[in-house]
Amino acid sequence: MELLKRRIQQDGTVKGNDVLKVDSFLNHQMDVALFQEIGAEFQRRFSDCGVNKILTIEASGIGIACVAAQSFHCPVVFAKKSQSKNIAGEVYATRVESFTHGRVYDVIVSKKFLGPEDRVLIIDDFLANGAALEGLIDLVDQAGAQLAGAGIVIEKAFQPGGDRIRARGIRVEALARVKAMSEEGGVEFVD
Amino acid sequence: MELLKRRIQQDGTVKGNDVLKVDSFLNHQMDVALFQEIGAEFQRRFSDCGVNKILTIEASGIGIACVAAQSFHCPVVFAKKSQSKNIAGEVYATRVESFTHGRVYDVIVSKKFLGPEDRVLIIDDFLANGAALEGLIDLVDQAGAQLAGAGIVIEKAFQPGGDRIRARGIRVEALARVKAMSEEGGVEFVD
Repeated sequence: MELLKRRIQQDGTVKGNDVLKVDSFLNHQMDVALFQEIGAEFQRRFSDCGVNKILTIEASGIGIACVAAQSFHCPVVFAKKSQSKNIAGEVYATRVESFTHGRVYDVIVSKKFLGPEDRVLIIDDFLANGAALEGLIDLVDQAGAQLAGAGIVIEKAFQPGGDRIRARGIRVEALARVKAMSEEGGVEFVD
Repeated sequence: MELLKRRIQQDGTVKGNDVLKVDSFLNHQMDVALFQEIGAEFQRRFSDCGVNKILTIEASGIGIACVAAQSFHCPVVFAKKSQSKNIAGEVYATRVESFTHGRVYDVIVSKKFLGPEDRVLIIDDFLANGAALEGLIDLVDQAGAQLAGAGIVIEKAFQPGGDRIRARGIRVEALARVKAMSEEGGVEFVD
């Protein structure tokens, strides 16, 4: 998605060799006009999939998912990061290791809002090591729902998550795939 | 907002005398078509205010704020709940006591994304004791930004937050104001 790649080149900042700060338009301040374009692009790529629910994870996935859901005419469910004990039986739960924050947390979704009748598109802002996405896929599996695929805004393609998940036969569409990045050289995309 | 009140009556659940569960359409599963109507109503009520930025707080305010921001043609900034020490100087920070979760947390916004040039509308899903909203107002004040007001989806008008904040001269527009509620009697609205 050229508009997005240009925006990353223009307003993104690389710290070290693996932190890409896009907090001026994607995950702290949020450019909702850009989100509309992102949503329309996800809809174009997954238009043949009969998506009736979008699943994301708090916090920074929520805005993108809600704007994108307007193109799919379906509701969004966001998985919650929980550090408390959950009431057994009421939620699907999985464990996710955050490399960014150096800890493991439980991620939960109420059983009321995900089930075998759902055809789910997962949406998230970043894909790197793939831990969050694998957690969301696990929740979809637990619910007996069908997974249409995952729509990712920025994939760090030099990290292993995307390849590992695609190798399982899961469709992962990333709108900007970063091949390499550095403070000096900036961001280089796949293709 | 009649559409919203009907939806609360229909799909909301009261637990005890002060918990209103609206997680099937507002803050876990999210009905983005309803959010569009909510956003249009906020825009109608604050159309004369020159709003150029919407401020909300993670997590459940983000979806509403992003959809509403499309009606205002402005970006959203979401305040982050932080339990870690922050780098002094880079963020505005305030402390918020959560009655729901029984703890106090820091709420932060990067100084890059809020400043004297901003005319801010705060958007959140609930207003009850007012602690979160007062924290967001404090961040706006610290930034030297102008506050247009606060757009709230559901106000528990039987709790003191709304009255206390309005008494400071701050414009608070709540789309559904709950006067009283109970498991037996359901939800009764102001007006």
